[in-house]
Parts: sequence; C-alpha cells; structure tokens
Amino acid sequence: MTAAPRTVADHLMDRLAELGADRVFGVPGDYTLSLLDHVVAHPGLTWTGCSNELNAGYAADGYARLCGIAALCTTFGVGELSAINALAGSYAEHVPVVQIVGSPATRTQAAHRIVHHSLGDGVFDQFLHMHTDITVARASLTAENAAAEIDRVLVAVRDHKLPGYLLLPADVAEAACPAPTGPLPAPVDPTDPVALAAFREAAAALLAGADGPPVVLGGLLTHRFGATAELARLVRRSAGLATTMWAKSLLDEADPRFTGIYAGAASDPQVRRLVEDAPVLITAGVQFTDLTSGFFSQQLPRERTVEVAAAAVSVGDRLFQPIALPTALRVLADLAQDRPVTDGGAADVTVDTPAVRDRNGSTALTQQQLWDTVAAHLRPGDVVLADQGTSFYGMATHRLPTGVTFLGQPLWASIGWTVPALLGACLGAPGRRGVLLVGDGAAQMTVQELATVLRLELPVLVVVVDNDGYTVERAIHGPAEPYNDIARYDWAALPAALGLGHDADAAVVRTETELTAALGAAAAHPARFSLVQAVVDRLDVPPLLTTIAQQAARANARSS
Amino acid sequence: MTAAPRTVADHLMDRLAELGADRVFGVPGDYTLSLLDHVVAHPGLTWTGCSNELNAGYAADGYARLCGIAALCTTFGVGELSAINALAGSYAEHVPVVQIVGSPATRTQAAHRIVHHSLGDGVFDQFLHMHTDITVARASLTAENAAAEIDRVLVAVRDHKLPGYLLLPADVAEAACPAPTGPLPAPVDPTDPVALAAFREAAAALLAGADGPPVVLGGLLTHRFGATAELARLVRRSAGLATTMWAKSLLDEADPRFTGIYAGAASDPQVRRLVEDAPVLITAGVQFTDLTSGFFSQQLPRERTVEVAAAAVSVGDRLFQPIALPTALRVLADLAQDRPVTDGGAADVTVDTPAVRDRNGSTALTQQQLWDTVAAHLRPGDVVLADQGTSFYGMATHRLPTGVTFLGQPLWASIGWTVPALLGACLGAPGRRGVLLVGDGAAQMTVQELATVLRLELPVLVVVVDNDGYTVERAIHGPAEPYNDIARYDWAALPAALGLGHDADAAVVRTETELTAALGAAAAHPARFSLVQAVVDRLDVPPLLTTIAQQAARANARSS
Repeated sequence: MTAAPRTVADHLMDRLAELGADRVFGVPGDYTLSLLDHVVAHPGLTWTGCSNELNAGYAADGYARLCGIAALCTTFGVGELSAINALAGSYAEHVPVVQIVGSPATRTQAAHRIVHHSLGDGVFDQFLHMHTDITVARASLTAENAAAEIDRVLVAVRDHKLPGYLLLPADVAEAACPAPTGPLPAPVDPTDPVALAAFREAAAALLAGADGPPVVLGGLLTHRFGATAELARLVRRSAGLATTMWAKSLLDEADPRFTGIYAGAASDPQVRRLVEDAPVLITAGVQFTDLTSGFFSQQLPRERTVEVAAAAVSVGDRLFQPIALPTALRVLADLAQDRPVTDGGAADVTVDTPAVRDRNGSTALTQQQLWDTVAAHLRPGDVVLADQGTSFYGMATHRLPTGVTFLGQPLWASIGWTVPALLGACLGAPGRRGVLLVGDGAAQMTVQELATVLRLELPVLVVVVDNDGYTVERAIHGPAEPYNDIARYDWAALPAALGLGHDADAAVVRTETELTAALGAAAAHPARFSLVQAVVDRLDVPPLLTTIAQQAARANARSS
Repeated sequence: MTAAPRTVADHLMDRLAELGADRVFGVPGDYTLSLLDHVVAHPGLTWTGCSNELNAGYAADGYARLCGIAALCTTFGVGELSAINALAGSYAEHVPVVQIVGSPATRTQAAHRIVHHSLGDGVFDQFLHMHTDITVARASLTAENAAAEIDRVLVAVRDHKLPGYLLLPADVAEAACPAPTGPLPAPVDPTDPVALAAFREAAAALLAGADGPPVVLGGLLTHRFGATAELARLVRRSAGLATTMWAKSLLDEADPRFTGIYAGAASDPQVRRLVEDAPVLITAGVQFTDLTSGFFSQQLPRERTVEVAAAAVSVGDRLFQPIALPTALRVLADLAQDRPVTDGGAADVTVDTPAVRDRNGSTALTQQQLWDTVAAHLRPGDVVLADQGTSFYGMATHRLPTGVTFLGQPLWASIGWTVPALLGACLGAPGRRGVLLVGDGAAQMTVQELATVLRLELPVLVVVVDNDGYTVERAIHGPAEPYNDIARYDWAALPAALGLGHDADAAVVRTETELTAALGAAAAHPARFSLVQAVVDRLDVPPLLTTIAQQAARANARSS
C-alpha cells in the first residue's frame, strides 16, 4: 500500500494550516467536491458548511477577525458571486480571507464548453476579473504554476491583511504537487532605517516639548497588523486612550486609561476635548470614515499629532516612510518609556459603566434601556457582534468588560453580516460566548445561519431587536414609508424550526424587567443557544444614531 | 400649489412602467431612500421589498420571466454585490432585469470621501465595472446625461433580453428632468432582406425535398424573443415538437404534438429517435448546455437541420444573417403552411402523463413516486418552479397540463433561486398558483423569502424535498461526506415562525398516500400558503439525474 500522491489541493491545505487556519468555510458544488475531500482528510483542517455562500463569506470574515486568517471555498460563478459582497467587505475592513473557487476542468475550459455556472459564452475568466478591486492578489492556477502561485497569494494575504483569490480547476486540484522545500517566507519589515531614525528624532522632539503625556487614539489597523501589545505599552505611559468605533475593544475597556469612543462631533464631549486638546496626539492605525467620524467632523491638532498609518508615519506635517505600523508604535512606546510614569496622569475622563437611566422596569422597553441592560449583562471574554443599525450605535458607547471582543462593520456596513459572523467568530474563539446584537431587518437577511450555530451547538446569546423594520433607515428617511417595512417573524419560535434536535431557549421581552430576567437566565446557561426577542418601538433609536442619521440624510440630499 | 418638478427618478419610473413593469423589487438603503419615494408615489408602480438583495434579484428574475422585464433597486456596494449573482444568472439565462443602484451623492464622490458601502479608497466606479460582463448596457448617470442614458440602457435591455445597470447618485435622482418628447423608440428588426430571401429559398428547397414534415426542437430563445405564437403555427404543420429542458413548457405540453424533452443521450429513446432521425429538423432558439444535452451528446442531422438562432439562421451548412428569430420562424411557419395539413402526421411518440409506478402507497416515499404524484396534482395555469437538483430532473420528464409555466435555471444553476423566484413569478402572474419544488439544501439558501410570500398572502404550494442534504451533489461525488450534510429544519413549523399573523398549512409526508392527501388538501385551498415536507431517502434520485450526475463526475475528473 502506497500513500496517495501529494496534490495541488494538499499543498493548498497544508499552507492554510501553516498560516493558522483550522477550518475551511463554504458551500459545496460539483466543481469543488473532490477538493473538499482534501479538506476533510487533512489532519489540521475541518470543513464548516454554511447555508449559502454569502453567509459562508461572512462567517469566514468573522473567523479571520479572531484568528488572523480564514479560508473560504465556493464553486465557480454562482458560488463566488454569491459570496463576493462578503469578500468586498473583508477588503474594505482589512480582513484577510482566502477565497478558493473550484472551476470547470482545464479541458472543459479549453474547449469553451457551455457548462453550468458559466455565462454560456465559453469564457471562464470574467469572475476572476470581477475580484480585481476587492483582493490584494489573485491567481488562475494550473498544474505547473500552482505551488508558486498559491504561495504568492497566501503571502500577500498574510502580509497585507486583505483578501486573496485562487481559481482552481477541478482537475488542477488533483494534479501532482511536490512537497515544498520549506515554510512560507517570513514577513519582511519594509521599514527604511533612515526614515525610522528621522521619525524617532522628530517624535522625540514633539513629545519632549509637550505640556504633558500624549493622548492615544487607537484605530483598526493596529489590530490588523498585530500591534496591540505595543499599543498597550504606549498607552500605559499616556494620558489616556480613545478609540474609533471601528476599533472598539482594541484594548481592555475596563482599564481606567480607556476613556471612550472618539467620533468627531458625535463624540462624548469629554472624549472630544481629551483628543482634540491633547498636548500630543498619537493616532495609531486610524482611518476616519463617515459613520465613525460624525461625517468628517474630526478636528485633530495637526501640528501636535503623530499619525501612524499602515506603512508611513507623520509627525506634524512631516512624513516618514516606509515605516511599518508595529515598528512605529514600538518606537513611540520606547520614547514614552523615557518619560516619568504618569500613574496619576491618566485623564480624568471615563465612560461609565452605564447606570440604568430609567428605573421603571415595567414600562415599554426603550432602546436606551435595552443597551444599558445588555451591556450590564456582558461577561468577561464574550465576543460581541453588533449589526450596523441600532445595535451598533446602541452598544458602541458602552464600556465593555475585560477580554470582550467587539465586532462591527462600520465602513462596509452590510446589514445582516453579524449572523454568519457570529458563527465564524465562535469557531475562532472556542470556549467564549458569542453575543449577537441584531435588528429584525438585518437578521432576516442572513437568518438561516442560525441553523448552523444551532447544529454546531455553539454557546451564544442572540438579542433580536424586534422593531418592525429598518429602523436605521427610518431614522434617515421615510419613517412611515412602506419600503422600510419587513415581514414579521415569530422570533421565539425560530430556533425550534431551524434547529431540529438541538436545545435552545427563547424569550420575548417587552420591559426592562423581562429583559433582565431573560439575560440572567441566558447567563445561567452560557453554553446553550439563547434567543431574546426584545420588542421596542419602531421609531426609537439610540442617541448616537440620531446624530449620525441626520448627518447621513444631509449627505444624501441634493444641495450641500 | 404647484406640482413637484419632474426629476430623473420620475423619468426612470415612467420608462419602467412604459416597458410593462408594474413594480420594483429590492431592499432599501440610505442611498436609495429618496429614490424609493418616487416608486411609492408612481401610479403605475409598487414597491416589493425583499429580505435581502440576492433574493430580490432572484425575485426580479422570476418576475421578468413572466412579464418580459423587471426592475431591481439596491443600494451601492453592499446591495448590488449581494445581488450580483442573481443578475449574472439573468444574463446567462437571457432574462431582462434592470438593476438600479443608488450611490453616494455626486459631491461626496467628487470629494473622494471614505463613506459607508465603499471600499474606503475614495473610488466609486469599481462596482459598475464589475457588472461589465453580466449586463448588455451600463450607465453612470449624471443630471445632464440621465434621460438619454436611461433610455439607451432600457432599450438595450428590452431588445437584447439581457440585464442592464444604472448607477444613480442620490442627488442625481432628485435632479430636474424634462418630460420626454415621446415614448421609447420601437424595436428595430435587424433582418437583412437579401439574407432573408436567400434563407427562404434554401429552407423551401430543404422542406420540399424531405420525406415528411419537419420535426421542431424548441429552445429558450424562442420564448425570450416573443416568438412562441409563430412557433406554435409552425408546430401545427410539423411531425412533432420536442423541447430542451431549458425551454420546458414553451408550448402547451398537453398538445399531442408535444413529444417530450430532448437531451441528447439522456433523452427518452423515442424522443431521441424523433429528433435525430427527423426528415427535416428545425431548431428554434436552441442552445445546448452540458446539463441540457446529456453533456453534449446531441446528434443532430446537420445537413437536414434548419437552426434558428437569435440573429442568424443556418440551413444545413449555409448561414444567413442578420435575420431576427421571430422573422425566421414566421418564414418557416409560412413555408410549412404550404404543405398539406398533417392531421395524422404528428409522430406517434408521446410522453405519458405518469402512471404511478409503485402502487404501494404505504411504503417509504420514493423520488419516483414523489414526482409522479406531484405531476398528477398540477392544475392548468400553475406556475411551477423546480430548483436545480432532484426537483428539476424529477419534474422535467413529466408532461404538464395546459397553461402551466415551468421555470428552471439549468445553465446558471444557482441553487436556492426558486424560492425568491416564486415570489416574483406569483407577482408577475396574478391569479395563478405558484408551485415551488425545492430540495432542503437549496431551500435553506434563500428560505427567508418565504416570509415575503406569506406577508403578501400569495397562493402557493411549496414542496420541500427533505432528504438531509445536497443530494444532487451526493449523486456526483461524496455520497457520505460531511460537506454534503446540512442543518435539519422542522419545515412544517417554519411558515408559522416566518409568517406571523398569516395563515398557512403545513404537512409532513413519508408515503405516497400521505403525499396524495396533502396535495389534495392544498388543491382544495389553492389561495392559501401550503407547505408539504416530503421525506425521502438521502440517496434516492430521479433516473435522469443519475445519468447527468455520472456525466458531471466524469467531466470534473482529471483525465478525459
């Protein structure tokens, strides 16, 4: 008996495992079935089948946010195009996902056959091209180029923290592929030493001349480029940390140096003053977007700001590049180290753990009560996913317990993303509870992935905001228009219908008292699937969303 | 009080109504909300909100197959990319759908703002470009070009029977637009008279020299180009009609001249002989694809064949062009008219209305029993949608009652398409019952659109083939592999969970007797939503699928 010869599919699976993926998400198709045999057979990989490809893409995205990389496998045409919105979202939000597309066999393509899942024109490269603007690297694999091209694309995904795309004909997956001579090449730090020295000198001068310790504004790319430890070291010598909403939970929000969310004019006034009046402001991997900046109302003290971007740093108006983000933060942490420890130096600005504002627990539940109460019931280590509607804006302003990861999608803002992302995040964080906060309209977009969560018996709490439609849209335009209406579900009946044979708890709550009881019951059984249908008024929105929605309506209007 | 000034959005809505659309499908987003006000306000249009954009695209496709055109409106980025697989399917299957995408305001784009639903790079034309290969015409609308460009794209959609794409910034939708000077220009018949005369002469000679009347093979494009009446006239003077699976229900299948489905070597032997041994074979708008030709096993008598394509005709090895398909069929019908009526001339080949083969109604339900029994319970006028798994292959071989429309998607073959297409088809065929035949794996892909069907209280029968996974994939590869497994639903409980406040019947059947009772009960209340969960063995497949699946497995294998 001889071992099966090593194939291109084996090479791909070995490399994915080498990069830290322990599973492949997707939906099978006949152009991928043999490929999936290699997933199933691989000792380091598991297959996670999803209900459809968009959901599989969202799940992969959620997993990658926890684990640093994810693999997605779909079939040609129908599968990859169903998933393409998820991949575009991963691109916009800097999430490294490898999309593997199984395509018709080489000889079928060479003969220009009119085969299923194609456009019927005998052409097979249109869908690859449709991925050009949403992937950092792409390859059309052949038996000859496969090993080198797979390695090239995976390294680009790993190093740029952006999606990549592999088009793999069914026969090429089974072609022979020699074992690699070694692991993938290590990442290269592109930092130029001369630029780095000049940056260090400029930053040192700015910090030395300042009235006090720097304030740090943390952004998403700090997380993506793996520099949170350096950031934490810097923050310990700072006057305080704020983050963008996009970077919420970047560092421990229970730490008193964390002061809250900075969103330009939509910020809490104390946080706004801290950031905008900072003696020195260090922004770490911050990108301002409309929804996370109060529609570009940020006012940073440019001449007193050190801006650390992905591959460049500016000090005031001077730009230094190429400098890798982690390297720049290390330099800044070292410089801050040279200052006396500012034990009492943390700014006297904190976002309170919410006091519940309306103490009457028996009246109709409000959005304010909802998010205050949910925040009070979060547990250390929870993975919280907030969909880009009232859930995101409702939770963004709440301080989270230690070890909580908060996931949102404020740039791409594809509603419904959280439901499959919950699946991926739970699989990427075994042992931690997943907490899904989602509106009814968003949940309906991707609701079938709750069935996979039930099937895999993952520990989750699902809070569905039952407010009869697209309330985030009502807040912007058309509060009573029919296009913001949706179907009504019996949400509490849904887990039993979607999860035949799996245990689940479900409750409908209409008051704060009922909500508190339901969240308490869920916390008592954290390993079970618990769904809470929270009924609130269709026009009630969190205060932050009121501000953002007015700004959005103005931006969409004709005259400026 | 003065009337509101006419806007670009009004112009677009007027033109859509002029082309026969009575509604717009989609999902709202903040870049489209004002635009949707013009849908709601239009006297000839209704808004049909769907649960997500892929489903909205599928629904539009289903509607267009009945009504000849459909409009789809989504938001920028997240919305259009979620729907793009549906639009690609419409392109592959020649379905005219107009995709309208609401985008950020012109000044937002000009300022290269990093706004939600963009990739965050200040660029706003990538998604337009991603539609290049799947639309016949596209336009990026401005206040200046909007009226002309809308008209250009709509005419192209109408005349080519393919999707089009309009990118409409939020402010441009509200820009002033003068009333058009008249209706859209009428379609132009591109037929060249000289080519037509030469074709007529060649066809007349072939028909005159033949041993008997022609056999007609009907294809999808005959339907798309509105030539079924001409085809019917031709068939009345023919020796019989077969159709491809793609064109099933092209003409009345209860007519004795309809002999069945031709699919190359996968055909019923009598149908195969009729077509391949025809004295003269006329193919009308036929395109052979892998799944509809028994993987290209068709053997047509080339020298005795008249092939009518979309804009060209061949007689034997002679090609005549440009000739429009309806014009060519009119000529052929006229020529056939000159032959004596062949009242007894119809071939003695008919596909029987199924005799139920296994008379033991109390044993476990088989796929064969399932499709025989469902076919026997179809009513004249039903709109039947069969998903591209066991449902499609199970029903394709059954003769349908008069007036039944059969919808499948054998080229694009995107499973789950039928559920939202049911919604669109029912709205496009008011008063007719929708019959959805779908496997459990396919249904899970798009299941939330059943909620919209319930919400609109459409008359439907839904038959879910509950066979525990992707049986069509199991038939091709990996019958026991985990990647072909799916979540288990309590299907009978689903209508109540998704359709709060709407009546629905649901039944689980495990034998032919139970199935017959459930279908009878549904027929007794055709205006109600009825769901039948038909439990069959996970490896049981219709005979036609066994053949096709073996061919698919061979096509995907390494060596040929």
